[in-house]
Amino acid sequence: MSKRQLKLGANLNGVGNSIAFWRHSEIPTNASVSLEFYKQQALKAEEGKFDLLFIADGLYINEKSNPHFLNRFEPLTLLSALAGATSHIGLVATLSSSYSEPFTVARQFASLDQLSSGRAGWNVVTSPLEGSALNFGKGEHPQHALRYEIAEEHLEVVKGLWDSWEDDAFIGDKENGIFFDSSKLHTLHHQGKHFSVQGPLNVARSKQGYPIVFQAGSSEAGKELAAKSADAVYTAHETFEEAKAFYQDVKTRAAAYGRKAEEIVIFPGIGPIVGRTEEEAEQKYQRAAELVDIDQALNYLGRYFEHYDFSQFPLDEQFPDIGDLGSNSFRSTTDRIKQEAKEQGLTLRQVAFRASTPRSSFIGTPEQIADRIQAWFEGGAADGFNVRTVVPNGLADFVDLVVPVLQERGLFRKEYESDTLRGNLDLPIPLNRYTKSEEAV
Amino acid sequence: MSKRQLKLGANLNGVGNSIAFWRHSEIPTNASVSLEFYKQQALKAEEGKFDLLFIADGLYINEKSNPHFLNRFEPLTLLSALAGATSHIGLVATLSSSYSEPFTVARQFASLDQLSSGRAGWNVVTSPLEGSALNFGKGEHPQHALRYEIAEEHLEVVKGLWDSWEDDAFIGDKENGIFFDSSKLHTLHHQGKHFSVQGPLNVARSKQGYPIVFQAGSSEAGKELAAKSADAVYTAHETFEEAKAFYQDVKTRAAAYGRKAEEIVIFPGIGPIVGRTEEEAEQKYQRAAELVDIDQALNYLGRYFEHYDFSQFPLDEQFPDIGDLGSNSFRSTTDRIKQEAKEQGLTLRQVAFRASTPRSSFIGTPEQIADRIQAWFEGGAADGFNVRTVVPNGLADFVDLVVPVLQERGLFRKEYESDTLRGNLDLPIPLNRYTKSEEAV
Ligand SMILES: Cc1cc2nc3c(=O)[nH]c(=O)nc-3n(C[C@H](O)[C@H](O)[C@H](O)COP(=O)(O)O)c2cc1C
Ligand SMILES: Cc1cc2nc3c(=O)[nH]c(=O)nc-3n(C[C@H](O)[C@H](O)[C@H](O)COP(=O)(O)O)c2cc1C
Repeated sequence: MSKRQLKLGANLNGVGNSIAFWRHSEIPTNASVSLEFYKQQALKAEEGKFDLLFIADGLYINEKSNPHFLNRFEPLTLLSALAGATSHIGLVATLSSSYSEPFTVARQFASLDQLSSGRAGWNVVTSPLEGSALNFGKGEHPQHALRYEIAEEHLEVVKGLWDSWEDDAFIGDKENGIFFDSSKLHTLHHQGKHFSVQGPLNVARSKQGYPIVFQAGSSEAGKELAAKSADAVYTAHETFEEAKAFYQDVKTRAAAYGRKAEEIVIFPGIGPIVGRTEEEAEQKYQRAAELVDIDQALNYLGRYFEHYDFSQFPLDEQFPDIGDLGSNSFRSTTDRIKQEAKEQGLTLRQVAFRASTPRSSFIGTPEQIADRIQAWFEGGAADGFNVRTVVPNGLADFVDLVVPVLQERGLFRKEYESDTLRGNLDLPIPLNRYTKSEEAV
Repeated sequence: MSKRQLKLGANLNGVGNSIAFWRHSEIPTNASVSLEFYKQQALKAEEGKFDLLFIADGLYINEKSNPHFLNRFEPLTLLSALAGATSHIGLVATLSSSYSEPFTVARQFASLDQLSSGRAGWNVVTSPLEGSALNFGKGEHPQHALRYEIAEEHLEVVKGLWDSWEDDAFIGDKENGIFFDSSKLHTLHHQGKHFSVQGPLNVARSKQGYPIVFQAGSSEAGKELAAKSADAVYTAHETFEEAKAFYQDVKTRAAAYGRKAEEIVIFPGIGPIVGRTEEEAEQKYQRAAELVDIDQALNYLGRYFEHYDFSQFPLDEQFPDIGDLGSNSFRSTTDRIKQEAKEQGLTLRQVAFRASTPRSSFIGTPEQIADRIQAWFEGGAADGFNVRTVVPNGLADFVDLVVPVLQERGLFRKEYESDTLRGNLDLPIPLNRYTKSEEAV
């Protein structure tokens, strides 16, 4: 089985990323704060041999926010709770580098990594929403470029702290009373532009070395950060061509940093809709779209554009020209929305419905979806996929119907190769920066 | 069973709070980062109907720190992992108000509270160790008075954020597409001296309202903070008289804030050593003391005094006069150490051994320990006890041997009264500040 293997993430999000998903009769309205709900999803994903669970996050809400964003678990506490309920699946939590302290971030992720015996991952985001600043006593939300500058230094500090203890530092010689070898304890002494952190960290490395670093942000600055420092990238693309261009771009940038292509695993996000027949899949999409009303759809769209009020424009005329709006928050998304609207001559109503109920191109029978996955995977557009639930039972359908087809084709594991996240992603354990290479085996 | 009931906490700490506990052959050297170890302890405490698990914490280490402090789980992630493994016991995590953001603290505790269905608690500390500042990019560690001023405002903000959502805000009307009632969502708009936080919080209240607030700090400022804002206090006293004076003091202060005595639950910490006979208990203490060597004991003592080097003084002469040293870190502890040394004419060696292997006054047979507990509890020195393990199997011995005696005497529950922490501690659910009292039942 030396054939290159697909990777899979399950992007869990309670009552869903869309505004109307919660209205399906099968979805518990408290799903976003139900440990039971998350536990079932986690176990289903583990049954399907997924590499990881992925939890997105945000730091600002107002009354217009999506249902799921209003009242949901905080990712690190949630994944810690799921650590005990699972045994092999990776646990990737989103946390913003713009509004956190590297010492605390390094500690909590290292702690999750130990709790799960090497299954933690950190999805580094820079926080798109301007309002976040108001919750953290900051006068203003740092501009896009500055956020990425902060992110880069933050991540450097966190990785430095994770190396505080060499892997063989803890001797535990009870007879002679020697708990640890103090020559294997290292103090970082970081003094940078944005952070000054002495160290050492009070948690040691786990058996996967330290947590996986995910990155999710597709601007130039985002791609650079990923290419330089991330193990994995979460990205969003509608078409194969777009995804392929992104994929090649990031791999090329990574090579410029001296990294091998397989050292950075690229996961486009997909929201598959699986039916036993094409018609069944289509019905599922229709049912989902019918749950949204147009006011909500406009409001949802506005969220990407700094809570812009789109209701001032006629619904059935061409999508309005709103200039630069959105470029300091979800830039890659807002650029795409504007571009599509222009290229395809979409009306405001069409743009709003698409945004609120994206019609996945991963829709159809299990074989059709597997074909598409295989085409992206083998065609140089993806190393794996981050699977989001967009219709009731979406994850279970994927696990029960699509995974077996992927396994049958030899594209996806039948058993976990490892019990660490790094092991399953085929990523090497990072050598501790202080460990002399002679000592490493 | 209307008799006043004792409360019990289990202060879990891996390889132990002392410098030599880990040397016992029965203690796994990795206990501080073993989920399995903590899970066993948690289940034992729950078997013993303990009210809560308590996890202490610290933000600065160096090579002289105690074994447990060097490499341990971060409390919130640890307790989240234990939430799934337990069903009734409270989960109290220590977190410093001097080096954290109220928004993040409010969120993570609220999330733990939801994950555990109303079992979370926050032990607010101000961080005694000066070095903490170096890990958080602060030029200097705030002085004692300033730390408490920050703590008070921090806690006020956190409680404000916890009330962002009224208890009946989430309607979940699928038919009409109404997820929540926006009149029940409240934005804090806090603008204070140390924090400015807008809100609202993106997690709702749990069925216990919000987490219990613990306070641990015994100075004047500490007692004031407790009296004004805490549900529970963790404190350390060697003698009944000391404990009683503290107890009465805090209850009197609470009354001055218009609070009833039973609204603030006082937990002295104890490290019981239980033997089937007095001799067996004594042997256990001796075995523990023999594991410490004098250099380590001096080093340990120095930790309380800003890592002061006591090895420069003769061991068998009177404890040296070190002036004001220690008053900006563990003030109440260092004052007590100095006072005892003076009053009892202790040598440096004696002070160091006592500090590193405190000889608990809760030592003896199960009946003797129960007598002492009863005397403190009925004599107005304690509402409950926070039980620390100081000898191998300490928690299990307490649960198996002492708890039945307490139950027999009608002092302690045989079954949990509630499945929330607040319920078991007999504390009322705090009314949401925005909920009109007519609406409250
Ligand atoms: C696929 C994808 C997922 C993202 N997930 C999150 C998230 O969970 N939380 C968050 O605050 N930002 C998230 N972001 C936003 C980015 O972190 C970033 O703040 C924003 O997109 C601007 O960066 P960019 O212009 O590089 O995309 C995500 C972005 C992308 C493209
Ligand atoms: C019984 C007790 C337990 C404490 N536990 C912690 C702890 O776990 N972490 C911490 O940083 N400080 C802890 N502290 C320290 C206090 O929060 C505080 O920073 C220090 O004692 C100075 O305050 P004080 O003079 O009011 O006691 C504890 C103090 C006491 C008395």
